[in-house]
Amino acid sequence: MTDSRLEPIYRALDAHNLDAAAIVPGSNFKRLFAIDFHLMERPLVILIPRNSDPVAIVPRLEMGSFDSLDFQGPVFSWPDEEGYDAAFASAADCLPELQAAQNFGLEAQRMRVFEQMALQKVFPNAIFRDSHAEISEIRLIKTSSEIDNLKKAIQISEAALEATLQQVEVGQTEKQIEAILLKELFANGADGLAFDPIVAAGENSAQPHASARHDYQIKEGDALMFDFGASWNGYNADITRTFFIKQVSEHDRAFYETVLSANERGKLVSRAGTSAHEVDDQVQKVLENSQFAQFRRHKTGHGLGLDVHEAPQIMRGNRTPLQTGMVFTVEPGLYRQGECGVRIEDDVVVTDTGIECLTSFPRDLRLVG
Amino acid sequence: MTDSRLEPIYRALDAHNLDAAAIVPGSNFKRLFAIDFHLMERPLVILIPRNSDPVAIVPRLEMGSFDSLDFQGPVFSWPDEEGYDAAFASAADCLPELQAAQNFGLEAQRMRVFEQMALQKVFPNAIFRDSHAEISEIRLIKTSSEIDNLKKAIQISEAALEATLQQVEVGQTEKQIEAILLKELFANGADGLAFDPIVAAGENSAQPHASARHDYQIKEGDALMFDFGASWNGYNADITRTFFIKQVSEHDRAFYETVLSANERGKLVSRAGTSAHEVDDQVQKVLENSQFAQFRRHKTGHGLGLDVHEAPQIMRGNRTPLQTGMVFTVEPGLYRQGECGVRIEDDVVVTDTGIECLTSFPRDLRLVG
Repeated sequence: MTDSRLEPIYRALDAHNLDAAAIVPGSNFKRLFAIDFHLMERPLVILIPRNSDPVAIVPRLEMGSFDSLDFQGPVFSWPDEEGYDAAFASAADCLPELQAAQNFGLEAQRMRVFEQMALQKVFPNAIFRDSHAEISEIRLIKTSSEIDNLKKAIQISEAALEATLQQVEVGQTEKQIEAILLKELFANGADGLAFDPIVAAGENSAQPHASARHDYQIKEGDALMFDFGASWNGYNADITRTFFIKQVSEHDRAFYETVLSANERGKLVSRAGTSAHEVDDQVQKVLENSQFAQFRRHKTGHGLGLDVHEAPQIMRGNRTPLQTGMVFTVEPGLYRQGECGVRIEDDVVVTDTGIECLTSFPRDLRLVG
Repeated sequence: MTDSRLEPIYRALDAHNLDAAAIVPGSNFKRLFAIDFHLMERPLVILIPRNSDPVAIVPRLEMGSFDSLDFQGPVFSWPDEEGYDAAFASAADCLPELQAAQNFGLEAQRMRVFEQMALQKVFPNAIFRDSHAEISEIRLIKTSSEIDNLKKAIQISEAALEATLQQVEVGQTEKQIEAILLKELFANGADGLAFDPIVAAGENSAQPHASARHDYQIKEGDALMFDFGASWNGYNADITRTFFIKQVSEHDRAFYETVLSANERGKLVSRAGTSAHEVDDQVQKVLENSQFAQFRRHKTGHGLGLDVHEAPQIMRGNRTPLQTGMVFTVEPGLYRQGECGVRIEDDVVVTDTGIECLTSFPRDLRLVG
């Protein structure tokens, strides 16, 4: 147990009575080892038992990069031409105590089925569990350097959004506007995309996860929704703003203001000790008590960091108390099918005195184009 | 069986004696339905039994987008606040014949463990198989419209590479050059990234999957490797070129020419009827018979399309005969640890008379900076 980088995962194993955790490239991997690998057709798995040294299974192709990780335990690399079965078998031979594991924790929202099958083959009697939430607790409380990375990703994103709005014109297609946004994200220094941006106008904005259309030209009175984010050093911004093209009806203005009230309410009630349930409940009540109650479609938000969607889920039923250092989105929305959708999404970090809102792009109703 | 879009998957089920296939968002999903969804914490699964109508499990949040898919079968949507177990149970109730399935095919390199766990819970006696390769056969032969999308992605990528090279200067960091490449990809019309680009200089180029460094400035005589691609309408370019900064030693020139010979050999021997094994074997022999044999690290290439890595794998042992319409990479490389790596990667499509090389960026040794 000489590798201090693994202390967070040992704490999670203890807290949840797990015999071991299997980690694949992705956010938990990056949080532990500060570097990451692509998740490819070649399995790379690190087995971390509760009571002994970790063991790694690594594609030979990646060994050069893996060496820089200074891994403290046996490493079994496998070459393309032989396949990975022997490496899994050798790893299992190092860990006989896991043959009887009753709680072998997997990142079940990240690990793919073929990786589990390879594990099951060499630990035929072990019982594998979906321990995604438990393992991912290592990322729940952000360090100040993680917050700095998020701030940088957000700053790039907001600069790109403003630059994009300056170029929006009636008659452009959603795809054209998306292309402008992508260009501006990288011109402003993004080193990746948090996710494929959503740029949706008119009735398409009423799809919470719409795809930009090649064949729809924006027109006066349309809503124009952007849901997007840059990534920086692996950390993701996630911002939604909704604008209107040149004019807005009184009905749409009231619709917008309702969402904005819910967004403000969510930020107002978020503080350490308050539960995720309570935040969502307060936000939903603003929407439910409005004339637009029937247009609700989703919860308030989700945690944000190395994953775009991570814990804590800000939703009714999640009694997790917010803690200082948690980062999450507040993103209420309303969606009138065939007409118009509005969502306003901020990213916040819980502080000792409430929250700090990391996003600062103005939220007042804005006409563009 | 009224949905003609599903014919390719029914053919795959028949060919491989599968009782059913479970499809999650991703490349197979997009190939079948022409639209796609993000793979998120909310499971969206389509069950396609061999002998009856398909059934879908869909997050309620996505129903608006899902409706546009015109799905021909029962759809069970589930809201965030209730979770997805009931929807999986209802789907299983529609498919009692699958309770005894001995060959329930999964996209095991795509589907995550929690989705399989949800299926296993409602089909407790079914036997799930890794049928990733079998199901993905629906994408093995590209249509002309798919080739057009790939050509567009490649054209954007090559224009971005040339524009980037014009801006490379001694003293820049790998990260700075990566930022220029990203900006140019989107300025040239990319609608996404095939993958996070690799920009690696000097000894970092000897890591096949290197990450760009903030703290290394390129200097005369360094190799500078770009491995990157734009995506267009979901289709991915994948191009590698290696340059040298201002000057190149005779040793590095011979090293480069060896890789180039292997690249040319791979394209020369690729044609319908030749096996993937034979192509890799011919390429590896060029490397093995050179003075640099010990610096080999990987196979010749992989299929390319909606996935960046897909079938056919161009590697020894894969006896799959190439067929007209297959698209794959030819990307031999050599890696001298601590010194220099060279890889030259083209994307080719098998035609009736040999191959068409989709990438056209020059391959002759080029000095930049």
